[in-house]
Amino acid sequence: MVDGVANESGELARHHDPAERGFASDNYAGVHPEILAALAVANGGHVTSYGADPYTAAAVEVFRSHFGASANVFFVFNGTGANVVSLQSMMQRWDAVICAETAHINTDECGAPEKIAGLKLLTVPTPDGKLTPELIDRQAWGWGDEHRAQPRVVSITQSTELGTLYTAEEIAAVTARAHEHGMFVHLDGARIANAAAALDLPLRAFTTDVGVDVVSFGGTKNGLMYGEAIVVLNPDAVRGVDFLRKAAMQLSSKMRFVGVQFEALLGGDLWLHSARHANAMAARLASALRDVPGLQITRDAQVNGVFAVLPRDVTARLQEQFHFYVWSEHTGEVRWMCSFDTTEQDVDDFAEAIRKELAQG
Amino acid sequence: MVDGVANESGELARHHDPAERGFASDNYAGVHPEILAALAVANGGHVTSYGADPYTAAAVEVFRSHFGASANVFFVFNGTGANVVSLQSMMQRWDAVICAETAHINTDECGAPEKIAGLKLLTVPTPDGKLTPELIDRQAWGWGDEHRAQPRVVSITQSTELGTLYTAEEIAAVTARAHEHGMFVHLDGARIANAAAALDLPLRAFTTDVGVDVVSFGGTKNGLMYGEAIVVLNPDAVRGVDFLRKAAMQLSSKMRFVGVQFEALLGGDLWLHSARHANAMAARLASALRDVPGLQITRDAQVNGVFAVLPRDVTARLQEQFHFYVWSEHTGEVRWMCSFDTTEQDVDDFAEAIRKELAQG
Amino acid sequence: MVDGVANESGELARHHDPAERGFASDNYAGVHPEILAALAVANGGHVTSYGADPYTAAAVEVFRSHFGASANVFFVFNGTGANVVSLQSMMQRWDAVICAETAHINTDECGAPEKIAGLKLLTVPTPDGKLTPELIDRQAWGWGDEHRAQPRVVSITQSTELGTLYTAEEIAAVTARAHEHGMFVHLDGARIANAAAALDLPLRAFTTDVGVDVVSFGGTKNGLMYGEAIVVLNPDAVRGVDFLRKAAMQLSSKMRFVGVQFEALLGGDLWLHSARHANAMAARLASALRDVPGLQITRDAQVNGVFAVLPRDVTARLQEQFHFYVWSEHTGEVRWMCSFDTTEQDVDDFAEAIRKELAQG
Amino acid sequence: MVDGVANESGELARHHDPAERGFASDNYAGVHPEILAALAVANGGHVTSYGADPYTAAAVEVFRSHFGASANVFFVFNGTGANVVSLQSMMQRWDAVICAETAHINTDECGAPEKIAGLKLLTVPTPDGKLTPELIDRQAWGWGDEHRAQPRVVSITQSTELGTLYTAEEIAAVTARAHEHGMFVHLDGARIANAAAALDLPLRAFTTDVGVDVVSFGGTKNGLMYGEAIVVLNPDAVRGVDFLRKAAMQLSSKMRFVGVQFEALLGGDLWLHSARHANAMAARLASALRDVPGLQITRDAQVNGVFAVLPRDVTARLQEQFHFYVWSEHTGEVRWMCSFDTTEQDVDDFAEAIRKELAQG
Repeated sequence: MVDGVANESGELARHHDPAERGFASDNYAGVHPEILAALAVANGGHVTSYGADPYTAAAVEVFRSHFGASANVFFVFNGTGANVVSLQSMMQRWDAVICAETAHINTDECGAPEKIAGLKLLTVPTPDGKLTPELIDRQAWGWGDEHRAQPRVVSITQSTELGTLYTAEEIAAVTARAHEHGMFVHLDGARIANAAAALDLPLRAFTTDVGVDVVSFGGTKNGLMYGEAIVVLNPDAVRGVDFLRKAAMQLSSKMRFVGVQFEALLGGDLWLHSARHANAMAARLASALRDVPGLQITRDAQVNGVFAVLPRDVTARLQEQFHFYVWSEHTGEVRWMCSFDTTEQDVDDFAEAIRKELAQG
Repeated sequence: MVDGVANESGELARHHDPAERGFASDNYAGVHPEILAALAVANGGHVTSYGADPYTAAAVEVFRSHFGASANVFFVFNGTGANVVSLQSMMQRWDAVICAETAHINTDECGAPEKIAGLKLLTVPTPDGKLTPELIDRQAWGWGDEHRAQPRVVSITQSTELGTLYTAEEIAAVTARAHEHGMFVHLDGARIANAAAALDLPLRAFTTDVGVDVVSFGGTKNGLMYGEAIVVLNPDAVRGVDFLRKAAMQLSSKMRFVGVQFEALLGGDLWLHSARHANAMAARLASALRDVPGLQITRDAQVNGVFAVLPRDVTARLQEQFHFYVWSEHTGEVRWMCSFDTTEQDVDDFAEAIRKELAQG
Repeated sequence: MVDGVANESGELARHHDPAERGFASDNYAGVHPEILAALAVANGGHVTSYGADPYTAAAVEVFRSHFGASANVFFVFNGTGANVVSLQSMMQRWDAVICAETAHINTDECGAPEKIAGLKLLTVPTPDGKLTPELIDRQAWGWGDEHRAQPRVVSITQSTELGTLYTAEEIAAVTARAHEHGMFVHLDGARIANAAAALDLPLRAFTTDVGVDVVSFGGTKNGLMYGEAIVVLNPDAVRGVDFLRKAAMQLSSKMRFVGVQFEALLGGDLWLHSARHANAMAARLASALRDVPGLQITRDAQVNGVFAVLPRDVTARLQEQFHFYVWSEHTGEVRWMCSFDTTEQDVDDFAEAIRKELAQG
Repeated sequence: MVDGVANESGELARHHDPAERGFASDNYAGVHPEILAALAVANGGHVTSYGADPYTAAAVEVFRSHFGASANVFFVFNGTGANVVSLQSMMQRWDAVICAETAHINTDECGAPEKIAGLKLLTVPTPDGKLTPELIDRQAWGWGDEHRAQPRVVSITQSTELGTLYTAEEIAAVTARAHEHGMFVHLDGARIANAAAALDLPLRAFTTDVGVDVVSFGGTKNGLMYGEAIVVLNPDAVRGVDFLRKAAMQLSSKMRFVGVQFEALLGGDLWLHSARHANAMAARLASALRDVPGLQITRDAQVNGVFAVLPRDVTARLQEQFHFYVWSEHTGEVRWMCSFDTTEQDVDDFAEAIRKELAQG
């Protein structure tokens, strides 16, 4: 037996300090206790694998209560899986996706869209991570020309990778333009709960109701252990999602444990409560740092992240005490993320530490 | 709120009968209670995501205690992911895999090896799901000929899809032949624990010690919620596993929960205990049915599955009472799988039901 | 200037003996003089590139005169290109092709179908390279099961890689079975002209008229310099051929030179004359060798190839004098191919040499 | 027989006016008469297929006389094939290419790099189609981070898609920066002859001698019928070119006809003569239009193209008389290309027509 794996009584040892929290990512957080409890509810006995179980069915119904009765839902393991399977199901082999240059699918998926799925991305520079009809039009042309991969999907992220938000009206404008062109709209909702909380709108108000065709719904960043969902709002926008999910290695055998997590998350208001809390903590942090000399908040903290520029040596000293990432090596901009389990004390301590280090120059 | 999601006190409702178990698949079973408990140990606080956490590190050490100190371990979501990422890391773009016609990678992954990873499979018919040096040689030729995808990897399954086992010596013969040809050997170990239990050998005795280069180590069928491992025994056999895992959408953000499951499974003897139990239950079932008129056991029950032929109408009546699969529509052969939670009573009740239905003709 | 590139007067030197011919492959032959002359007719001046030129249009009309007025034709560079683009246009990403184990797409394209196009091949062993409804049914199952790549296309080769022929009735039986299953039929016609000549049937009699959906029409082996054609007989069987052709790097810019070759080949009876001649030469060779002791003709010489077994040392000595290939290292079977430019003298000299070497033991 | 295919005497009819030439593309031109003559020299008799013939060997030697004795050469069908096979041979599956946003591989290949080869392109906006060390650095980062496709190749085009030229020194700066980063450099030389002519430098002076690793050498735009070459200058930069070429469907069976074209093109000074002529015609056109009111030449005519902005209705009227393309629908910029067969009279007539239409407003 490996040293330290279990104690005398055979129980597994804890290898980390559960009181330690940082501002690196909402992925550094663990699982919400209600989600953990839900896993136990679904355990025991035998149920059909690969999704034909009652927890998956219940989770699908819960999604429909949010997105509308005609939504189809396909659970997958992670966000890249949700994005790639969604997009592939919306595109012929010769099609292309229009997205912001800063989109996660373009920058953070090791080329999975291109390498695994053969998707061509047509990227557009944006000031704030958001597409507009005008920005879409920079790439939305050339249909019928066999020399050009055919623009077929517009993919937007809500909230964006830069912590910004689309209003429902802005999304409506995007979908209207895309649909005029005969294109579909995909929404990468890795942090969709934070967006809904910030907009104070039901999920469907900025998706189903404004013409979004397919949503990658993020669970992990909102307190799940693992599991994301492809939510098909327009059935005409996709083909073969079930086959593509399997071929993309995103079909979980013991699916009931994905289903029950989503049931627990979305059946009540846990999703909203957690997202509001994370947003509030980011707002509290931004507020505490607003007038601190030597630090500049670079983007409006619309959801659960704060972006700031501060002296590089201060950043370095702070990183010895707290986990967080430098967002841009070029500008020295840092990103501080809050999660469902960030406390007011965490924020206040962090803000105090920042102020202290800045004061020391 | 969706009806039935939670009861009055806000707790999630159970949607299934935890006392019901069948013989359909080891994937129908839930999570072993010790694994569920381990998830709670790893929860709380913040740890680095994507695998740089102490639970993942501990799990890697546990794997090394089994497979040798130089093993490298990469955790993934599921078995198809483990197989595809393993094979891709072992192959150039123009290479091919030699495998049995019945290999899971050939028959049950919706073409993921070909479609996601561009892998060419060179299949060989076998009597029992097992490759031999002679069978390998049917496809092991043509190196240097640009018209033929170049055989580079031999992939075997232990235990096989047909419930058969390789001895350590048989695997040694396979690896010797493959290595003579300059090829590497991949072992699909979706049920490797059952194999070790049946052979009564340490895991390394039929992998590391007999020249296997890379193992897909299965956890889910042995009582995990999710999670498999790519175990690289020969570092020269692979390139870029970390990048390929990410691009293949198999990198979990909250990796600690995969790590801690494997630590709990393999740190003590839970893996072996569970596998021995499942195997024993299959043996018990086979034994109980050995001399029953009208039923023929078609393969030696070497691990946790029993294959049998019985009248189709009897099968149909049994399927109304118990979950199990017809393995071959052609011959009417059925497959009965046992798992870590199958009880002696389950087996005896099932055997009794089979006898009863057979007696009624 | 490189030595030997041009002579004093600036003309290019000939590097080969135009009187030397062998029996290695119809690809060793050059270009039929009428085809070479046609290239000059199309030269000079400017015409639109990528296929919007009058030679391409004329060639399409010529194809329609053979295959029916509703045929659509897409010219490509080579046979692998024709096969891969055809199949991809007929399949969704999760589909599979049923083909003979000996099919060129399975054995001789370096895995292009899998590696470039993500196509899963479901292979069937055959005695003679030909599929039948019964053989198709060995792989034609599992629709709707997301774990299995979905059989969507049956691909047959006419004439086959083993020099055998389907009758029109046999192809009708194949297409009937495929269509019953909701599948399409692709015909790899790398040597379709030889097949038509041997069957003494118009091209459409064993394609359009018996339900074939898409044909890869081979030109190169019948005297062209380069160029094959995808002939779509059933427009409902394909999507996006033009885009797929471009993305597959099979769209020629100066397409007029492909078009004019096909116009010259198929506008009159050059295609048939050349094919009949090649077939006749193979028949002459087979006839000359029928009763020679020590040599066994292994397959009926139905088109332009003769397969035979003879002592390996005799083969070796013959290969010092003539180009030809050993077809099976295992059995020592050799393949002798005739082409449009093989002469009776060539055949007689070769047969004489074979007899002489055999006599010397 | 289709009407018009052949005349009474059996000869093929001409379907176009060989005296008509436009300014649409160097792909609209036919084949240089010396190249056509070379095809006949290589015809007749049998030679080994797939490149093992004396014409291919001679062509390789001719390339070595230009690029250095250690160059390896692989002939392919077309430019997209040359680019995609080159890049794939230089990259692991998880790598990325840095290129200008205007690069042909990004804009005009229907996504072949992504869709066929799984290549991730990291694009950079440029003012003139040219990369610099500083522009490369915008994307040259993130090595070791599994979330980012790893920058491995810088691809530049010489001359560029915008008709601009790199000096040898500029290319040296690009390769120096790339190599510092551990990256390789690919040069898309679809119009490399025009570049050499304009720079008045030997081919190796701005490739081999300044550190370029692999060149896609364009033949078709310089008077060939078909055929391009992958010229490997640094053997350590590539793996498996021969296999990748076959799998990419770019291996010609009757390769001798590709080889002999390149031998004729590059064995003497035909390549240079043709390129100089095309460049001179573009310069003549630019010169004739320099001071014409209502027309603005937008880029320096460094090679064989002229870019200009003029009123859209004038463009429309001119297009009724001459073939040419609008380069940017947005700005109304047009592109006029000259080729090896453009005459002074062609240019003067076209310039006169432009002046006349402009004068009419």
